This record gives sequence, C-alpha cells and structure tokens, in this order.
Amino acid sequence: MKESSDISGQKWRDREDLSPRMDAAVKAITQSYDVLGGIHHIQGPKLPSRDDICALLREILSLLFPGYVTPAHELNQMNIDYFVGQRCSSIFDQLAREVEKSLRHECENSSHCDRPFGECYQTAIDVALGLLDAIPSLREVLHQDAHAAYRGDPAAKSITEVMLSYPSLIAVSAFRIAHFLQREGVPYIPRMMTEIIHGFTGIDIHPGACIGSSFFIDHGTGVVIGETTVIGNHVKIYQGVTLGALSIKKDLERPEVVMKRHPTIEKNVTIYAGATILGGETVVGEGSVIGGNVWLTHSIPPYTKVIIESPYQIFRDMKTGRQVEREHSRSRSADSGSA
Amino acid sequence: MKESSDISGQKWRDREDLSPRMDAAVKAITQSYDVLGGIHHIQGPKLPSRDDICALLREILSLLFPGYVTPAHELNQMNIDYFVGQRCSSIFDQLAREVEKSLRHECENSSHCDRPFGECYQTAIDVALGLLDAIPSLREVLHQDAHAAYRGDPAAKSITEVMLSYPSLIAVSAFRIAHFLQREGVPYIPRMMTEIIHGFTGIDIHPGACIGSSFFIDHGTGVVIGETTVIGNHVKIYQGVTLGALSIKKDLERPEVVMKRHPTIEKNVTIYAGATILGGETVVGEGSVIGGNVWLTHSIPPYTKVIIESPYQIFRDMKTGRQVEREHSRSRSADSGSA
Amino acid sequence: MKESSDISGQKWRDREDLSPRMDAAVKAITQSYDVLGGIHHIQGPKLPSRDDICALLREILSLLFPGYVTPAHELNQMNIDYFVGQRCSSIFDQLAREVEKSLRHECENSSHCDRPFGECYQTAIDVALGLLDAIPSLREVLHQDAHAAYRGDPAAKSITEVMLSYPSLIAVSAFRIAHFLQREGVPYIPRMMTEIIHGFTGIDIHPGACIGSSFFIDHGTGVVIGETTVIGNHVKIYQGVTLGALSIKKDLERPEVVMKRHPTIEKNVTIYAGATILGGETVVGEGSVIGGNVWLTHSIPPYTKVIIESPYQIFRDMKTGRQVEREHSRSRSADSGSA
Repeated sequence: MKESSDISGQKWRDREDLSPRMDAAVKAITQSYDVLGGIHHIQGPKLPSRDDICALLREILSLLFPGYVTPAHELNQMNIDYFVGQRCSSIFDQLAREVEKSLRHECENSSHCDRPFGECYQTAIDVALGLLDAIPSLREVLHQDAHAAYRGDPAAKSITEVMLSYPSLIAVSAFRIAHFLQREGVPYIPRMMTEIIHGFTGIDIHPGACIGSSFFIDHGTGVVIGETTVIGNHVKIYQGVTLGALSIKKDLERPEVVMKRHPTIEKNVTIYAGATILGGETVVGEGSVIGGNVWLTHSIPPYTKVIIESPYQIFRDMKTGRQVEREHSRSRSADSGSA
Repeated sequence: MKESSDISGQKWRDREDLSPRMDAAVKAITQSYDVLGGIHHIQGPKLPSRDDICALLREILSLLFPGYVTPAHELNQMNIDYFVGQRCSSIFDQLAREVEKSLRHECENSSHCDRPFGECYQTAIDVALGLLDAIPSLREVLHQDAHAAYRGDPAAKSITEVMLSYPSLIAVSAFRIAHFLQREGVPYIPRMMTEIIHGFTGIDIHPGACIGSSFFIDHGTGVVIGETTVIGNHVKIYQGVTLGALSIKKDLERPEVVMKRHPTIEKNVTIYAGATILGGETVVGEGSVIGGNVWLTHSIPPYTKVIIESPYQIFRDMKTGRQVEREHSRSRSADSGSA
Repeated sequence: MKESSDISGQKWRDREDLSPRMDAAVKAITQSYDVLGGIHHIQGPKLPSRDDICALLREILSLLFPGYVTPAHELNQMNIDYFVGQRCSSIFDQLAREVEKSLRHECENSSHCDRPFGECYQTAIDVALGLLDAIPSLREVLHQDAHAAYRGDPAAKSITEVMLSYPSLIAVSAFRIAHFLQREGVPYIPRMMTEIIHGFTGIDIHPGACIGSSFFIDHGTGVVIGETTVIGNHVKIYQGVTLGALSIKKDLERPEVVMKRHPTIEKNVTIYAGATILGGETVVGEGSVIGGNVWLTHSIPPYTKVIIESPYQIFRDMKTGRQVEREHSRSRSADSGSA
C-alpha cells in the first residue's frame, strides 16, 4: 500500500479505539467463511483466475493476428520464428497449467467425472498442444471472418481497419478459441473466455454454440447467442439480436445434460438489429432475411424474408396537439435494414 | 515517457519552429481553464478518482469471494486470518480516505449540507468500519444471488462456473456495496462504483434502487434499473430489460429531492428480454411473468402473465416476391421466454 | 514469464517427447503466416496499437478535464502550467508518431492515396498541433454536453457526479476527439478511439458522424450512431437507440466513397429508449419527440410527437389460465418516456 498523502491519513491509524472494532469485523468475516459454502474458495484444488485467463487469451490472439493485437512488436522475416516459438512456449505453459487446475477441480467437486486419477495431467498437456496445432486452421476461419466484416459493412474502409478496431473480430476469435476448449471437455475456462469478451464487446456468445465460417456481427452490443445455437456459413447479424431459448425448467439433478434449446440458422442468412429467434426446433432456412425487431419462434423455409408489420404509429402535432397521421411505419419502406 | 524507437521520432523535437506553436497551445489551454468552470477541478477539496475506486471495489469483492476474484492467493486455514486482516486494513484505509474526500467536497460545494464542520472525518471512519461490519450479511445475500443464478440458468453447469464467470454476480455485488454506501449518505462513490461495473457488464443499476435477495440477471447487456426501483426477493430478469421512468421535468432548484419515478416489482416475478416497465406508480404483482418486449406503464395484479400479441409479420418468398403468410408471430407459441 | 508455483509445473517442461510436437506446431503456425495474408502484419510500415491509442486517449481526456480523469494530481494555480505543458508535450509526441504510422501505412497499402512522398511526416505534425490548438474549443462544447447531462437526467445530483461517473460524457468526448482526427484525414486512429470507448460504455458512435453541442445520451448501452448521421444542438437520446442505414449494397470497388446512409436529427429532439431511425434521407424535424421503440424510416416535420401504438397485449390470470384483458398498452398512458 502506498504511503498516504492525505492530511488526515495518519490520524485514524493512531486512534486506539479503532483497533477493537477492526478486530471484531475481521473475526466476523472469517467466521462467515465457515458458515457459508460455495461462494469462497479456501483450501482445495486451485482454480483458474480471471486475470490469468485474460492474459492468456491476449497471448493467443497475438499469435493469431501477429502485428495487430500486441503493441511494439517489430515483426519481420528475421525474428518471426523467435516470436512464434516464444509465444507458443508461453501459451503452452499457461494453458496446460490452467487446464490442469480446472480438470482437477471438476474431478474433486463433481459426481459425474469419469476420468481416472492422474489423467488430468496428461489431458492438460494434450489440450494445450492441441490448441497450438489448431492455430493454422483457426487462422483460416478467422481470415474469412475478417473478410466477411469488410465486405459486409459499408463503413469499413479496409481490412486493416477491421483488424485494428472491429469488436466482432475479437468476439468471434475468442469464441472460436473457447469453443475448441469446450469440445475438448475443459471446464470453466471456455465460459470465462467468452464472458471476458462479453465484457469488452457487449457480445455474449456461449462457447457451446456451433458457428460456421465468414461470420460477421455488426456493432454487436446486446447480441446473445445461446449454448446450443447452430449457425451456418456466411451469416451476418446486427446489434441486439437474441438467438435464445423458450423458457424451460432446468433439471437440477443433471445440470451437465445439454438439450437443444436454441435455434438453427442456415447459411447465407442475415438477421437485422433487435430480432429475437427462440427455440431448439426453430430453423431459419438458407438465404433468409430476418428484419429488425422480428420475433420468431417457429421455423421458416429457405429464402424467406420476414419483416415485422410495425404496429400503428401515431404522429401528433405538438403545437396543436392534433393527431396528424396514424399509419404502419413500414408503409413507406419495403426495406428491413438496420445497420 | 519511453524513449522513442521511431526513425523520425527525433526529428520533430529538434525543429525550432514548433516551439512557439506549442507554447501558444499551452497558453490557450491554461486560459480556457479560467474561463470555463465546472468541467475541471483545480484547487479545492480533492475528489475520489475512478482508478482508485476501481481498485477499492476489486479489493472488497476479493473479501466477499475469497479465492475467486483475485489471482494467485493460495488460501488455506493457516493463512486465512492474515488474508482477512490485511484486506480489512487496506479497505478501511482506502475507503475512509475516499469517503472523507467525497464528503468534504460535497460540503464545500453544496448548499444543502447540514453536517457540522469536522464531522466528515468521523463519518468517513464510521462508514468504512460499517462496511466491514456489513460484509458477513452481504455475503449471505450474495450467496443466495449466486444460487439463484445457478438454479435459474439452464446453461450453468455448477456454482463454480457462476462464481468464475457470470456478469450478473459481479454487477449485483457491486450494486449491493454501492447501495450500502448510498444509504450511509456517501456522495459520488456509489454511482462511480455502479458505473464502473456498468462499463464491465453492460448492466446499469442505480445505487439508489432497493433489490431483494436471490436476484439474477441473465446475460444482462442493456439492463437499466432506475434510482427508485423496488424489487422483491426471487426476481429474475433478462438482457435489455428497462425498469425506468416516465418522462418528467427535473426540478433544477432541488436536484437532491428524490421522487419515486421507477416501478415496484414484487417477489417471484420473471421479466423476459427487452421488456420495458415504466413509472413510479407501476406495481408488478407477486409471481407475475412479463414476456419479452412487453411495454408496461400501469400496475398488474399478482400472478398475471403479460405477453405481447406481436404485430403481424409478413413472410415473403424471396424468389417469387410473393407474400406467403401474414400472421401474429405468437400464434404458434404460447410461450414468452427469451433466455 | 513468472516462475511457476505449480507442483506439476516443472514436469512437462522436462518431458522430452513434447519437444518435437511443439516444434511441429511452431513450424505450422509460421507457415500459415506465409499463406494467409491480411490478418497478420509482419514487415512493412508499422501500425498504431490499440494499447497505445488507449493510453493516448486517456491523456487527452485528462487535459480536457484536469483533476477529474486522472488520479492523484493535486492541481493548483502554482503547478497548473507545468501540468498542461507536460501533457501537451507528451500528447504531441505520441499523437504525431501514431498519425505518421497510420498515414504511411495507408499510403503504401491503398490505391487512392494522393499525398506526395514525405508529406506524411509534415501532416502528422500539423494534425498533432492542430488537436492541441482545438482543445479550448473542444472544452467549450464538452462543457455544454456536461451541463446537458446534468439538466437532462433527474437522477443527476450535481455536475461533479456527471464529471466523475457518466458514460455519456466519456463517449461523447472521445467521439469529438476522434471526429476532429477523422476530418483531418487520419486513417485508423479515429475508429480505434471510438471502438475503445464503445467497449467501455456500450455506446457506438462512428467518428464520421456530425453532432451538435449540448448532446446527452442517458444510460447509453446499445446506442448506435452511424457514419453519416447529422445531429443538431440540444438533442437527447436514451439507451438502445439506433440511428442507422437501410440495407444497401457496398461498392467494394470504391470503399472510400461515403454516401449519406444515416438520418438527420434536427435540434431539440428527444429520442426515447430502443427507437430505431433509419435511412440517409430521413429527417426528424426540430423539437420532435420520438417515443420508445418507435421504428421510423421516413421524415417527419418539426414539432411532431411519434409514439408507437403498442400491439395488443394479453393479460392472463396464471391460476385460472383465463385471459383477463386484451388491450393496447398505451391506452392508460399518453406518455412515451423511458428513462
């Protein structure tokens, strides 16, 4: 703790009457740890920390997009091998350690772990190496995602601009890393990664979702993509879109069982801002266009355009108070965009 | 400032013609501080800084959830007393100092302060100790909030996952800390805390709101809960929900007077994504369910389910251009979920 | 990399069978950089980094609002000149360097650059000095923005509270800085600045937009203001408002050409939460009020109030399952607020 520069800073530390009050507070807090389980973590296998996962995610992104994500690297053909080697070694060490912690914790706390003892260690090594092996194919998909952003946004002036500033690319990259770890059976870390990026971008993609290539989210704030969503290639969605579940009762006896609760979006679909598509049996057919604010809870065939026939809107002259018009807001526009 | 590694870095510092232009800019900026009041803070009582409040909030969270929030602590029964003692001492010093600054600043700038001179110092100590005393009871409520998240989200696999990654828990924890300080009459700091977390999570809860136990916000981005909102126990809300005010004129003569402008939500209510509930006299009765996108400005009795009868939606075959259907989107679904 | 404190940390580094697997992964990643262009940046002119732009933006904000943004400065009439001089010098160095990098990169990568060789250097100096020269006038506009926030929000207790915690002020300040740089023809950096702040606040304002004085965004999460939007003085908007484009095809041959795609909002307009206003020819006349959730794609005359005549909502008694009411949700309220 830095030295207080406050005039009054020293005063309260010298006051003797504070000491017993502080002692009582400390004791009561320590006791509350004994009484209330579940929201503290004292003793027992260690857990991954949010700060460490954040740093790790940043390193992986810098390996995916060298020269863009991290500052001050002067990468060239001379030093690129050293850069990659150093990064891979660092990512391997951190990821293997965090994955082992997660697996061990799950093993000791969960009734449905079927890994034999000692396997956590070997699995962690395999997962960490597996992610490094997957980097080239992840780069191929993300290359297509970046180009989809450039093609899909009239405001994008260059790929460079997309790489340097678009939240969609960061969110989708983190999702694809987290999804890889999720499929490998790693607990905790995938969701921590997507929630870190949810915090940065306002885009909430569950690591369990399956998302095709050339995926672009414009603006993105408020987007929610649920755990069992399936999305084909070349899909574009806008801010505030929810791909969600109809309300269901959770089976608290078997929280690990995953039912299909979220929709399937086929390839080449565009979903405009604020649309809500719900339900595990809902399929939006190939090439369809879902207009802004549409609410959809059933399937539609390929190449269907759905627009909301907006409710009547009332236009009132504020000086006279007279209603001057009452109309469907769509009546003057056939379009459904909301970029 | 770090040494520039730029080839051209040195060049402009040597150019003599830049110096008078820079001097003129500096002088004009300094003068503008004399002319425009209110948006700078030179001389006068010091203010809490956002960075310091952010660090303080993080320390308080690490005391609420030891082993989860902060990294690298290997907590066990041996060292837990030292951890709690060190944290309490550190939080006390920081909080007392920031509260004293806030109170002093308000006293010297506000016409409606009725504290006698010198009381700021004693009040700051009492507030800081009071928060430490309140930690055990805050932990009890947050324990219930965490379990409400686990029970309420089909995607939650364990309490550990909730503790490590759910934005709702961070937002609600920060709100409960801020609300405690708000009730103690601390200016500035409560709102700074909730806005820091608004930035992290997209969840905007005013520290003046009153929120019962077992509260869960799923996804959360875009949620707004206004200053005079009252929420009972066991309430669940989803992303994009606004609990807001009907438009009113502000009384600029008495900005400190708080009128009830925001709704009351009774216990066991669920409010799905995008719903808007407005007005200080609006009461949503116990056990009610508010469907996605509902717009409500009047009270409803207990155990009422409100769903929006969605506007007609037009389904058009994109190849033929023919309209194939026009229907209420709700007609195939009785449900109102949007998880 | 810090020393591992993990029991198992040393184990995997000693295992000889890992080395060839790691080497293979490193080689494959390096090769993928040769194959996939565009999403990495090795060799060639350097680019601004997000971290550096973030630090620079913070310094500029501390010059705009001395004593509020940065911590631990004890500013007074004695030291204020030194503070301003040091900040100006630091901002000048950083900004000139970043602008030069951006200009050079664009020159070498774009077919439509018409700057003669060597001009990047001089332009960077002029832009950096130009921003410092513009600080006093930026402060005048932001002074009005701060007061608009105080007057416009019934929850705001003082200007100090606005200065210390309101996301609107941060977002609008960053936008005004970015807009200055955008008009000076600086590539990349303006959008990086607004996207950094989009991440912090959930407010997404394109640096190309033109926004008048006394502008206030309440709550803000989910707001999108597109590239060619024009906004007059004294406009207030709420969370989730989109000022966007109708869907158009991008001209990939000429990505630098900017068409007016987004609406014009005349002075003294209020736009409530969740409203969507689209299209480059859409003009919202002076003094109009746009209610929550309105969807507007055509112009309206001055002093018009538009409210959505909400769809019928169904109120059902959950115990009997009987429908108890079916009504327009607006029928009991003439108002359109959503604060």
